[in-house]
Amino acid sequence: MTHRIAIASDHAAIELKTVLVEWLASQGHNVDDLGPHSSDSVDYPDYGYKLAEHIAEGEAVFGVALCGSGIGISMAVNRHRACRCALVSDNLSARLSREHNDANVIAMGARLIGVETAKDCLAAFLETPFGGGRHQHRVDKLTHPQSAKEHA
Amino acid sequence: MTHRIAIASDHAAIELKTVLVEWLASQGHNVDDLGPHSSDSVDYPDYGYKLAEHIAEGEAVFGVALCGSGIGISMAVNRHRACRCALVSDNLSARLSREHNDANVIAMGARLIGVETAKDCLAAFLETPFGGGRHQHRVDKLTHPQSAKEHA
Repeated sequence: MTHRIAIASDHAAIELKTVLVEWLASQGHNVDDLGPHSSDSVDYPDYGYKLAEHIAEGEAVFGVALCGSGIGISMAVNRHRACRCALVSDNLSARLSREHNDANVIAMGARLIGVETAKDCLAAFLETPFGGGRHQHRVDKLTHPQSAKEHA
Repeated sequence: MTHRIAIASDHAAIELKTVLVEWLASQGHNVDDLGPHSSDSVDYPDYGYKLAEHIAEGEAVFGVALCGSGIGISMAVNRHRACRCALVSDNLSARLSREHNDANVIAMGARLIGVETAKDCLAAFLETPFGGGRHQHRVDKLTHPQSAKEHA
């Protein structure tokens, strides 16, 4: 199954982004590369928010968020309630993020993860369905924080 | 240096939470255990939001957020702009989250990380200062998403 997938990074993750854009395209996915498109220093929140809004507007089903450690951009993407961004560095976490959390954005750290492990995580992320069931209302509380507070 | 540290989890991470509460106290920290206090099934967003509000209100300087994978509760904590929550499973990521992102909450996955590695990550998190400099205005953009959008 192929998807429309958006990808964004900061300057530290430009090379990994290029590799993953090509790999995703080779798998038949439609890829929106939201930048950056040079190695000039940028701020990860700008690209995290750009990706989050792209997802929120329905322009892509899934997102890939990259920075040096993956930490900063994952914080930024998760500011948006339309996004559930999982920072992962292993296959199992990538699968669990889909199965339990219905993650729609995967974050990885370009300076910490190898290229093949990154592809392995991304493949696992894309092929794992959400489990639903008891996980659904927890995911709903991520989408509607206010309702969670009222019912906690 | 000791701190006031809040900790929260879901049912899957109760045992790790107990171990870390005791370990933090043994290091001289003041620990606010925000629950849960039984192994009954709970929803990670409820406890993530509880922790985030505790931090936002200045009740604790740092937070520790635990669930099965660490993914769900890290998403919940990062909904709150007062929190910068880093999901980590290794010492280097824990250090980078402080140095580059001024993370004030560390998330870990109780079913994925060993107890000694969790202590090692938490120790690294607590002893690493924020680097400031070029990292400061990126962190500011996490605190004020709207201003980032206006200036992106």
